[in-house]
Amino acid sequence: MIRGKITGRVWSSKHIETLPNGALLEVEVAGNTLVAFDPLGCAMGEEVLITQGSVAAAFFTKHKAPVDALIIGSIDDA
Amino acid sequence: MIRGKITGRVWSSKHIETLPNGALLEVEVAGNTLVAFDPLGCAMGEEVLITQGSVAAAFFTKHKAPVDALIIGSIDDA
Amino acid sequence: MIRGKITGRVWSSKHIETLPNGALLEVEVAGNTLVAFDPLGCAMGEEVLITQGSVAAAFFTKHKAPVDALIIGSIDDA
Amino acid sequence: MIRGKITGRVWSSKHIETLPNGALLEVEVAGNTLVAFDPLGCAMGEEVLITQGSVAAAFFTKHKAPVDALIIGSIDDA
Amino acid sequence: MIRGKITGRVWSSKHIETLPNGALLEVEVAGNTLVAFDPLGCAMGEEVLITQGSVAAAFFTKHKAPVDALIIGSIDDA
Repeated sequence: MIRGKITGRVWSSKHIETLPNGALLEVEVAGNTLVAFDPLGCAMGEEVLITQGSVAAAFFTKHKAPVDALIIGSIDDA
Repeated sequence: MIRGKITGRVWSSKHIETLPNGALLEVEVAGNTLVAFDPLGCAMGEEVLITQGSVAAAFFTKHKAPVDALIIGSIDDA
Repeated sequence: MIRGKITGRVWSSKHIETLPNGALLEVEVAGNTLVAFDPLGCAMGEEVLITQGSVAAAFFTKHKAPVDALIIGSIDDA
Repeated sequence: MIRGKITGRVWSSKHIETLPNGALLEVEVAGNTLVAFDPLGCAMGEEVLITQGSVAAAFFTKHKAPVDALIIGSIDDA
Repeated sequence: MIRGKITGRVWSSKHIETLPNGALLEVEVAGNTLVAFDPLGCAMGEEVLITQGSVAAAFFTKHKAPVDALIIGSIDDA
């Protein structure tokens, strides 16, 4: 997994039908930005753990979701 | 997912049979260029979300498609 | 696989339900840091081998786990 | 997918049994070189589209092939 | 696939049970080092082809192996 910090949110009104409802958050990881699906209700600035690839998509069990980055946890403060 | 901007289109007359009909768009992502399948009819300059790997291929349910990058949504203007 | 050195541990009280119980260790790999699941009980500073992607998730056979990085071995001292 | 240019060919007399017969071409992609299986009969200098990972392997339907990079099309001249 | 040169070997006495018996070789690829399973009996300094990800794991058919990098061939001298 990789560790990142939530820096924003994106909205997409025009999308493919199989994109699940829910927040798509921008996460900064080592200077790069990716967009991850958030099933946990995370907040701006929160430190999170992200899983990627088909492992992320496997979280969605009712239908196939085109999601290749998923927030799986919020990292506790040290 | 990653966020990118559409910068061009490629055509391939000589291709393997399982490549689906549809637009193959060049997308610039953080200084690099990749080519993604576009099921949404996006336009030059549009900001899009891309999913990659087997998650992208899983969008094609009728037959196996050799597509490892898929545009899943257009990003709304802020 | 990639070779890395254990540099820390992360805790996540708020996480998705399918995250398995167990240690999530920070591993430094060629200057970058990733977080891997540790089924072996490794210690700080230990050199380990990590497998990634769906291959890592396949280790968990009872249920689908959102784990895309797994410590598969500790490297013997030369 | 990624776009690359064919720069060479590799031969491997000693290989695992499941490697399919066919050309293994060196392709330059943004300054890096990878080796892709070519089912199309491409020529030196040709610009091609490459798909990677399990999506590439899925092209081979008769048996499992250890191929993680596949040329899926030749790019038409602009 | 990627091309690399064998530069060493790693041993792991403490490992998960599903790691197959066999050589784990260090391979230098464009300045980076990865560790790949070697089913071919390759030697130090040999130039090899490596496949990665779930495609590498699929080589192991009797049980699921946590191997995400596999040597699939030795490259013939030019």
